[in-house]
Amino acid sequence: MRMSKWVDFTRFGDFDMTADPATVNDEFLEELRAIVEQRLSTSEAVREQHGHGESYHPTCAPDAVIFAKTTDEVSAVVKACAARRVPIIPFGTGTSLEGHLAAVRGGVSIDLSQMDRIVAVNSDDMDATVEAGVTRKQLNEHLRDTGLFFPVDPGADASLGGMAATRASGTNAVRYGTMSENVLSLTAVLADGRIIRTSRRARKSAAGYDLTRLFVGSEGTLCVITEVTLRLYGIPEAISAAVCSFSELEAAVNTVIATIQCGVPVARIELLDDIQMDAVNKYSDFDYPVQPTLFFEFHGSTAGVAEQAEMVGDIAGDFGGSGFQWATRPEDRTRLWQARHDAYYAALALKPEARGMATDVCVPISRLAECITETKKDIDDSGLLAPIVGHVGDGNFHLVLLIDPDDEEEMARCTALNERMVMRALAMDGTCTGEHGVGYGKIDFLTAEHGEGVSVMRAVKTALDPSDIMNPGKIVRV
Amino acid sequence: MRMSKWVDFTRFGDFDMTADPATVNDEFLEELRAIVEQRLSTSEAVREQHGHGESYHPTCAPDAVIFAKTTDEVSAVVKACAARRVPIIPFGTGTSLEGHLAAVRGGVSIDLSQMDRIVAVNSDDMDATVEAGVTRKQLNEHLRDTGLFFPVDPGADASLGGMAATRASGTNAVRYGTMSENVLSLTAVLADGRIIRTSRRARKSAAGYDLTRLFVGSEGTLCVITEVTLRLYGIPEAISAAVCSFSELEAAVNTVIATIQCGVPVARIELLDDIQMDAVNKYSDFDYPVQPTLFFEFHGSTAGVAEQAEMVGDIAGDFGGSGFQWATRPEDRTRLWQARHDAYYAALALKPEARGMATDVCVPISRLAECITETKKDIDDSGLLAPIVGHVGDGNFHLVLLIDPDDEEEMARCTALNERMVMRALAMDGTCTGEHGVGYGKIDFLTAEHGEGVSVMRAVKTALDPSDIMNPGKIVRV
Repeated sequence: MRMSKWVDFTRFGDFDMTADPATVNDEFLEELRAIVEQRLSTSEAVREQHGHGESYHPTCAPDAVIFAKTTDEVSAVVKACAARRVPIIPFGTGTSLEGHLAAVRGGVSIDLSQMDRIVAVNSDDMDATVEAGVTRKQLNEHLRDTGLFFPVDPGADASLGGMAATRASGTNAVRYGTMSENVLSLTAVLADGRIIRTSRRARKSAAGYDLTRLFVGSEGTLCVITEVTLRLYGIPEAISAAVCSFSELEAAVNTVIATIQCGVPVARIELLDDIQMDAVNKYSDFDYPVQPTLFFEFHGSTAGVAEQAEMVGDIAGDFGGSGFQWATRPEDRTRLWQARHDAYYAALALKPEARGMATDVCVPISRLAECITETKKDIDDSGLLAPIVGHVGDGNFHLVLLIDPDDEEEMARCTALNERMVMRALAMDGTCTGEHGVGYGKIDFLTAEHGEGVSVMRAVKTALDPSDIMNPGKIVRV
Repeated sequence: MRMSKWVDFTRFGDFDMTADPATVNDEFLEELRAIVEQRLSTSEAVREQHGHGESYHPTCAPDAVIFAKTTDEVSAVVKACAARRVPIIPFGTGTSLEGHLAAVRGGVSIDLSQMDRIVAVNSDDMDATVEAGVTRKQLNEHLRDTGLFFPVDPGADASLGGMAATRASGTNAVRYGTMSENVLSLTAVLADGRIIRTSRRARKSAAGYDLTRLFVGSEGTLCVITEVTLRLYGIPEAISAAVCSFSELEAAVNTVIATIQCGVPVARIELLDDIQMDAVNKYSDFDYPVQPTLFFEFHGSTAGVAEQAEMVGDIAGDFGGSGFQWATRPEDRTRLWQARHDAYYAALALKPEARGMATDVCVPISRLAECITETKKDIDDSGLLAPIVGHVGDGNFHLVLLIDPDDEEEMARCTALNERMVMRALAMDGTCTGEHGVGYGKIDFLTAEHGEGVSVMRAVKTALDPSDIMNPGKIVRV
């Protein structure tokens, strides 16, 4: 495998995969069993399953997996691990993408999926408190009769604790924000087992350092998140959807910029490039033009969504958009958005034997057209197949690189393409990850992005986890 | 003066006012002059002016004041101070409210008001980068021809660096969020003089710990903020305003809850209680009913604001609101909102010889009516005069206690009332400060609110400022 300048895929973060594992011996396992009873597993299958996310990163299994039921249990397990300096890796649904779950120094995976209780829904306050293992679909199902919903949608039906830990976002962040804007408070187990709640349930506070937002996105490296209090929103009276094609990518992006500048409170704006549209047509038997295409969703009153759609139709027309269709009936909306929903599977179907490697840069929107155009040229020059899907309202886009992980030469080309893409985004004042997080896969890019800032992160990490037992080897090297 | 259980006003945070001052001798002053030339003052008037905010807290002057022009100068000054362990207190416009500016251990006040350059306005990206000394009005004046504006409005024309440092918000946070949601990135000088930028200009990022939000609200205790990149918004096509009176406070609050739950994207909802309305009537010769009154502002399209006002009118009617008036013409809007804008001065005019002591709790909105009602009863029982103004969409409200700081007995009653109000808010899962911050005035309340969380804050503080020179004695005791 080629040694990349930025990322060395033969190593996990700063850890050699062959380094000494932590001491998880029988005595220690007995100690853990005293806490969680039968909810501990050392079977190879369970350990393997907990040693990877949904990405191309290789599996690196923990020594043991415990299935926690309560915050107090997590606290007791962390205390036991801390006493022996055994690493801890929190696990939600296993859908992370940058090697967050790899047990690079062995240790104990704390599976939170059985902490699936909805603790409280406060309709008047439009918030809910859930245990970390509750998934976003589970919460929305529970909320169905309240007229409220939780908007953040990263695609996967991830656990809300995991979404908080990775600062997830997704298609409707342009309207509703990311997990950063939507977590009101956390219950967190610190590296020494102490339990804190980071904030009260008030909508805003100026009471000291913002521990909530320090922990959102900390990927298990500072604490184990066991409960999350989330903002909820009223289900809009009306939802409408629209689709529009453009002959040039730049025109599509300019339509997005103008839409946002006009203050249209669009709920979703997604871009699919020509390759992705071709994939979607083939996969679902659509006959969309094979052109850069924008998918919109509008939330509001009946009159409001009509007005929004009309404004966006006018703006798209000004930029040469064609075939503008919009729909309000649920079945028509679903049909219209089907292409977007199918995007990932449609991409994979272009090369059925391949696996998907998802990249994730985010740039100021003024640079988005340039960044995508240059990236497309780079894809073509590299001879790789990589459809583009973008949350363009945020300046965030992904390639789905269709790769064979066993083909070292192809992997090297993909890795090099991703590196150039990240460095291009950084040069445009963008970020190496809009929403997937750092894990160990982007640990070197983080230094490229933050420079001295990483030393501040390291100082925080060392202060809160002096023995480096909390998901070691992720975000910062200690 | 009565020794309060929570706040001891004879001391600054953990520091006795008579403790040894830092060593700011002639040699050190020469060192500083080598950096900032003539922009250093040790005059008593200048030092006194930099030793207090706009609150009742006593002045505690720094040993010297320097007027910085660049981030590099700030860095050089911090390095010089760090070498001698001399405290640093950043100063913007001096409008903070909880003793943030008190030089409790002496040291150097770094006045950033001459760092007043608007570095960049990126219209397409709807963001702007400004030096820390630029005030919000200055920025909005500069933006006038761009169709964009910066919404956060804490009342005072504070510096944007200061607003970031104190996590300010104000009347329209219900729609646009606080400084936490509106700062994209900061340039910060660390305790050892290193300069970092906390984030790129991308709209979102999952790249490591959120240093931006760790520093927003850190009140100068972790770094000196020298530049701020802010989100901007399109000036709405239409703005309308409305006013409505209620015989009962609870009905007013229920109107607010229903308005937000219906998804009306109201830009401002302010509550003035009967005492405050009486004050306003007297001050500006209005004849509003002397009842709890809501002031609304709506932003959107022409049709949209009409729709919003109509919905809110209906909701207010359902809860028994009366005299609902709304206006779209700027002069009519201004007249309607005059009562709200005059609130503070109208309150002071009730007792011309008094000073205002502003309290600041924030509770989940479902508890707001109860919290305000109990507080009103407490005010009556205490025999104090204290009109109420609330940013009720956020659950945040203030008393303006009209006090004579030289009247120890009255001060003690005010202090006790404020304590009970804070403890009442905490018992309702609220916060001791919605937007004013901690300074040293609320340092004990912070412990009451966060418990063990304060030790996490202390660990972060100690990691990033091991010598405790950054605005010592504020937020956490070291």
